[in-house]
Amino acid sequence: MSTGTPAPQPASTARLEAFSDGIFAIAATLLVLDLRVPDDVTTGGLAHALGQLWPNYAAYVVSFATIGIIWMNHHAQVDRIARADRGLLTLNLVLLLFVSVIPFPTSMLARFLRAGSDQHVAAAVYSATLLGMGVAFFAMFTYARRAGLIVDQVSPAAARFLTIRNLAGLVPYAIAVGLAFVSAPASLALCGAVALYYLLPERLLGLPDA
Amino acid sequence: MSTGTPAPQPASTARLEAFSDGIFAIAATLLVLDLRVPDDVTTGGLAHALGQLWPNYAAYVVSFATIGIIWMNHHAQVDRIARADRGLLTLNLVLLLFVSVIPFPTSMLARFLRAGSDQHVAAAVYSATLLGMGVAFFAMFTYARRAGLIVDQVSPAAARFLTIRNLAGLVPYAIAVGLAFVSAPASLALCGAVALYYLLPERLLGLPDA
Amino acid sequence: MSTGTPAPQPASTARLEAFSDGIFAIAATLLVLDLRVPDDVTTGGLAHALGQLWPNYAAYVVSFATIGIIWMNHHAQVDRIARADRGLLTLNLVLLLFVSVIPFPTSMLARFLRAGSDQHVAAAVYSATLLGMGVAFFAMFTYARRAGLIVDQVSPAAARFLTIRNLAGLVPYAIAVGLAFVSAPASLALCGAVALYYLLPERLLGLPDA
Amino acid sequence: MSTGTPAPQPASTARLEAFSDGIFAIAATLLVLDLRVPDDVTTGGLAHALGQLWPNYAAYVVSFATIGIIWMNHHAQVDRIARADRGLLTLNLVLLLFVSVIPFPTSMLARFLRAGSDQHVAAAVYSATLLGMGVAFFAMFTYARRAGLIVDQVSPAAARFLTIRNLAGLVPYAIAVGLAFVSAPASLALCGAVALYYLLPERLLGLPDA
Repeated sequence: MSTGTPAPQPASTARLEAFSDGIFAIAATLLVLDLRVPDDVTTGGLAHALGQLWPNYAAYVVSFATIGIIWMNHHAQVDRIARADRGLLTLNLVLLLFVSVIPFPTSMLARFLRAGSDQHVAAAVYSATLLGMGVAFFAMFTYARRAGLIVDQVSPAAARFLTIRNLAGLVPYAIAVGLAFVSAPASLALCGAVALYYLLPERLLGLPDA
Repeated sequence: MSTGTPAPQPASTARLEAFSDGIFAIAATLLVLDLRVPDDVTTGGLAHALGQLWPNYAAYVVSFATIGIIWMNHHAQVDRIARADRGLLTLNLVLLLFVSVIPFPTSMLARFLRAGSDQHVAAAVYSATLLGMGVAFFAMFTYARRAGLIVDQVSPAAARFLTIRNLAGLVPYAIAVGLAFVSAPASLALCGAVALYYLLPERLLGLPDA
Repeated sequence: MSTGTPAPQPASTARLEAFSDGIFAIAATLLVLDLRVPDDVTTGGLAHALGQLWPNYAAYVVSFATIGIIWMNHHAQVDRIARADRGLLTLNLVLLLFVSVIPFPTSMLARFLRAGSDQHVAAAVYSATLLGMGVAFFAMFTYARRAGLIVDQVSPAAARFLTIRNLAGLVPYAIAVGLAFVSAPASLALCGAVALYYLLPERLLGLPDA
Repeated sequence: MSTGTPAPQPASTARLEAFSDGIFAIAATLLVLDLRVPDDVTTGGLAHALGQLWPNYAAYVVSFATIGIIWMNHHAQVDRIARADRGLLTLNLVLLLFVSVIPFPTSMLARFLRAGSDQHVAAAVYSATLLGMGVAFFAMFTYARRAGLIVDQVSPAAARFLTIRNLAGLVPYAIAVGLAFVSAPASLALCGAVALYYLLPERLLGLPDA
């Protein structure tokens, strides 16, 4: 946009959170628009038609859970950020762009999950979107650390450890992109497993509770 | 999601409320997208076509009121929660998944309420969704109580009483699922009666005002 | 909903505002979904097709402005409310139901504004929805006054005066319902004039600035 | 709306921000609804069909980024406003009307970007919408300055400088409107360049960091 301020001022993270929460909540809720009973249910009736929608349910649940988890992680990270400069806001916008676009590959994957060769394209685009979201998330908080925007500075060793761990978190999505060309359902299942891993309480995973 | 924090931090309930409120508000408002005048209104004109939409109005009002009431109850319960751990956030996500999916069974019920045998399937799915939402709500706050997240601990006797009362609140929805196979309109009416019960001021029900 | 609390607790108005603001904002933004270029633009091209959409633009602007104004008034009134009991929350839900349903009559009016006799039905439903919203607003704040929920009590004389003035505010919408059966565009124009009246600064109307 | 208060009270900017943030977030997220795989993907398969959607991606990204930037600028400006009177709320509503309508010209531009002569109309409407948004933004904060609503008054010289600079910010959009009649893609690219300019960190542009 063009007017008002020549350059946006550093923003308190409060409104950054409010805007981001809005996008997270809307993107998650818009997913429902793709759950629709087909116009023609004459063959086998409604129960049969609902059963045929299972790719929609699977994609819905994985996408909803993934948005929910990125919301949780975003929340946890922004809490540690003291102030937002323009670079951070821009990277946050890139992250939100990936979040808000999720209903598109979700809808596409649900539609093509059982379609011959197109299933591979649909699953690759789907997991690539989640990978892109992960990369944007990683970039945003790496930027925040380097730009000194974090409230409590961590030691260089701890920061290096965190960075490696975070990069490792991108690996499953990268694998899911490749896996898409072998099996679309397997690729979706891997994305779902990532979500499940983050949703389960730490003690079930043998980790100390956060 | 994969990056940033290996495990989400305990969240203040403030942002839990903001995200949840967003989902409640959006799900309630998206319901309107299913109110549409049919393309063909030549027979009998618009007034007749609007009259034919009564199942849409009925399902709209019951769903809107139900989301409104779960919002109120969510509000009242979260106010008593001191902090949110990952388990609570996950159960809250499950609850929000049920809330945000409501436009789907609502749309389906409106469409099939007058359709031969499919009306039973549609009504059963509809009331099962509300039942699932109720179970998620029950699970979330039972978890909060057991995990010691509640601000003011209630006595064991009071807690037992509350649990029984809350479980009892699920009974009408379970009945509505069964009733769906007898009469879809009756099942919807029962769901509406539950909403109405919670909306009426306590004094009209002979209860002390909350 | 059925679980958690047998009866919702009195809510702080903060979260009442957040939920209401969400519904206002979403309903206003969903209006855009009905602005769509028709599939067939071969006759006369896009410019001609866009020109044909003027009923959509008119209905869009009137509905958007009306939602904006009810948001402003809601804001001003809730600021004076000390606490929300269940009756107030219920009446607020009724108000929000009218707000969130607005995209439906808006879409219908845009479609039928130039259609023979159906334009009267569409315009009557449209202005009746705005009237219903006004009545719900009136009921909500009359209830708040009678239930002693208002922060600064006004004198009985002032309260009577305000009530009369507020009731008078419903008159234009009631007239618009009747006018719909004479001319749909005139009915819409009257609704737009009400919005314009509230949007113009007080000094242009010869009123003291609020 | 007609009831409650005869005239809306001056509003704290907190709720102005909340409502505006809601509209920004929803408008940005609704853009995704126009990303849809065409029904017929038999020719060339899904990958080909996705490739054909590039006008949709381009328009999506430019619109999303533009809404994100106006959000940032709105944020920075509202932070300097001490209180909101009715005039400011009304101008804010006009701004929000332009923001919330963006999905409409975006969808239209994506559809007509490769269509003979209609591309010019679509691109002109698109950039005119962004221009209108910029004008509303300019008007809102010029009003705030003149009405003495700004927290920290700037000197007359600085105010004049800011006004000129802000007016200059409208020029690219005005050029984009004219450019639309030469080349629709060039017009969209110019709008995108404006967004990019505001997104890049100041130091890359040789400006002091805000």
